[in-house]
Amino acid sequence: MVNVAVLGYGTVGSGVVEVIEKNKDMVNKKSGQELNVKYILDLRDFPGDPYEDKVVHDFDTIVNDEEVQIICETMGGVGAAYAFTKSALEKGKSVCTSNKELVAKHGPELLQIARKNNCNYLFEASVGGGIPIIRPLNYSLTAERIEGINGILNGTTNYILSKMEMEGADFDTVLKEAQEKGYAERNPEADVEGHDACRKIAILSSLMMGKNVDSEKIYTEGITKVTADDFVYAKAAGKTVKLLGRSVAMGESEVLAMVAPFMIDKSHPLAMVNDVFNAVFVTGNMLGDSMYYGRGAGKLPTASAVVSDVVDCARHLGKVIMCFWDDADAKLADISELDRSFYVRVKASAKDAAVEMLGDDVLTVPGRDEDLVIFSKSMKEKEFAACCEKLGDAVLSKIRLY
Amino acid sequence: MVNVAVLGYGTVGSGVVEVIEKNKDMVNKKSGQELNVKYILDLRDFPGDPYEDKVVHDFDTIVNDEEVQIICETMGGVGAAYAFTKSALEKGKSVCTSNKELVAKHGPELLQIARKNNCNYLFEASVGGGIPIIRPLNYSLTAERIEGINGILNGTTNYILSKMEMEGADFDTVLKEAQEKGYAERNPEADVEGHDACRKIAILSSLMMGKNVDSEKIYTEGITKVTADDFVYAKAAGKTVKLLGRSVAMGESEVLAMVAPFMIDKSHPLAMVNDVFNAVFVTGNMLGDSMYYGRGAGKLPTASAVVSDVVDCARHLGKVIMCFWDDADAKLADISELDRSFYVRVKASAKDAAVEMLGDDVLTVPGRDEDLVIFSKSMKEKEFAACCEKLGDAVLSKIRLY
Repeated sequence: MVNVAVLGYGTVGSGVVEVIEKNKDMVNKKSGQELNVKYILDLRDFPGDPYEDKVVHDFDTIVNDEEVQIICETMGGVGAAYAFTKSALEKGKSVCTSNKELVAKHGPELLQIARKNNCNYLFEASVGGGIPIIRPLNYSLTAERIEGINGILNGTTNYILSKMEMEGADFDTVLKEAQEKGYAERNPEADVEGHDACRKIAILSSLMMGKNVDSEKIYTEGITKVTADDFVYAKAAGKTVKLLGRSVAMGESEVLAMVAPFMIDKSHPLAMVNDVFNAVFVTGNMLGDSMYYGRGAGKLPTASAVVSDVVDCARHLGKVIMCFWDDADAKLADISELDRSFYVRVKASAKDAAVEMLGDDVLTVPGRDEDLVIFSKSMKEKEFAACCEKLGDAVLSKIRLY
Repeated sequence: MVNVAVLGYGTVGSGVVEVIEKNKDMVNKKSGQELNVKYILDLRDFPGDPYEDKVVHDFDTIVNDEEVQIICETMGGVGAAYAFTKSALEKGKSVCTSNKELVAKHGPELLQIARKNNCNYLFEASVGGGIPIIRPLNYSLTAERIEGINGILNGTTNYILSKMEMEGADFDTVLKEAQEKGYAERNPEADVEGHDACRKIAILSSLMMGKNVDSEKIYTEGITKVTADDFVYAKAAGKTVKLLGRSVAMGESEVLAMVAPFMIDKSHPLAMVNDVFNAVFVTGNMLGDSMYYGRGAGKLPTASAVVSDVVDCARHLGKVIMCFWDDADAKLADISELDRSFYVRVKASAKDAAVEMLGDDVLTVPGRDEDLVIFSKSMKEKEFAACCEKLGDAVLSKIRLY
């Protein structure tokens, strides 16, 4: 029997207990032994809960119990979660987490402590809750040189963009609706400004490079400036708009990483990823393109991912599972030097200046002549920014082309 | 250093050598040691080939060399490949294969021999060459009760159906073109009649059930009867036609498995899988839906999958990697008892009889009134077959609805 403790009895934590209980036969068979939830750490009590007798309020009870071998950290945050994780790993207890913030911030350090203490720090649930992506990157694509990763990594923003596309509604209206339905937080900034996606692409980029990619250095732009009109023009051009986390390996130790809305062809596999679904599109030098699709969040999908890590830890007690993510920092490439094309919507009055600077690939949409839409020629990000500055107020909207 | 032998220096075999060489640094790092291709078994000589000095003609040289620890079987077939695999495993040498026919036919026996001899029989490349799917099923979805698998599992037929959809061409024309381009075999039966997809869904179903699903008992129907007209009607209804391998767990030891063309909504993720790409759509009781997408075949994608197995074997020398696939047979459910709806195209003259038997969900397409298309009410497969028999020659085409 392997004893497990769950830190935080919120949505994901209670899901972890539920998955271990509901799929007991499967989980125990795959673990090669019985999993037993011995403790649940939470500040609250849960009178009437079937697991109320397992609830403790003091982490020391857990970390000092030699019978506890695996800990699920489903608390979130980088304060107590960091201290508890570190202390558990130092005692040789493996930790499985859904906490992307902590993984993005302290991943390499925690992995190193785990290695030193012959235990494991696993984080399948930290990126794309219901999408097995960390394990495929670590164990399946081992014969590949991964060249790039492009992902729809946030369920809230993908839900909002999908609704905007399908209903022609504007950002604020859809955000409000999403908040009412519980798909968006009361304070939606972490999602709509791209910070959540940024942490996830930082984790994926770090695994791709085998080096640390600092999430705080990644260029990040959210979806708040995307308008209903942009979707009208996107549709007319056979495209849609998605918030993408993107990462390209530029050699051994340099990486180009960013989060921003992109206009993408409807025929691209990422374009059909709608609502709260997420997907990670991986390009390898031998395999070519592959894609991993599933629910990006949600209680049970995320909990299932955490429990798959618990199973892996149970199978590898006392053994270190390979994960290449060194403490050495990868260099982040300067995105302003990148060449690409842009969708730009300008006031019709600025047509001549816009066409001269950006090119003459003008999109004509019947009944829409007040605005002018140009798909720009390929140019550096900084050149494009300079053009936009010259055009000033005439620029109504701009989105990078995928 | 780990010594590897490659059996069969054809497309996949030479790809394996190429991947090990080209991605040497990555492969060696992930293996934790250096991989060395010591032998290549082939009946032919390869004068001028950079690896010509490694070519041997006698399997005994390989199997009796104690330095060889891992063997890649990329010969195909179930004759010599079976004998060689068995004999290698009995000597404790791990075998990695792309040979779906052999895996589908003798998988559980070979897995058992591997277990007994503390080595491994791995087959990531046997299903969806460039799609990591075997390892996710075995290692990632370990907290899941997998309820169903639906896959586009054959590149040739998906290429043909995609072309028929996009170009409005008929089956024979596209098949001929595919043969000229090398996307279809001179003798295309194994692909177009669904036998290749059948072996793959047998392997996936066996892993889902943990029991043996006999490919020879799986109902299998190919794409030769799908017409250009069917795509016209599918499009009008917002659908397309895909050859699917399908499998549903009906409890602990019964499985419903089949291969057939299905008409599927264009909004389903499987509908956007075009050309030679494949995808496997997996439904778990906690995760919900997830999908794995990539190249279904091709020299380097398939070879990369074989080499990822070699890396796994190198990391686990002397240790058995978990794979639940018992020798016990899963019972195959009788598909004739299944309820579903069907697309049926009948001569307009049979309208009254068809509507009475199948329902009145008639599809009207402007300019097409010589045929009548009905999406039938839900009915058992055998009831539908009886209706079609009554309608006789009036039935021009029929395809199951997904």
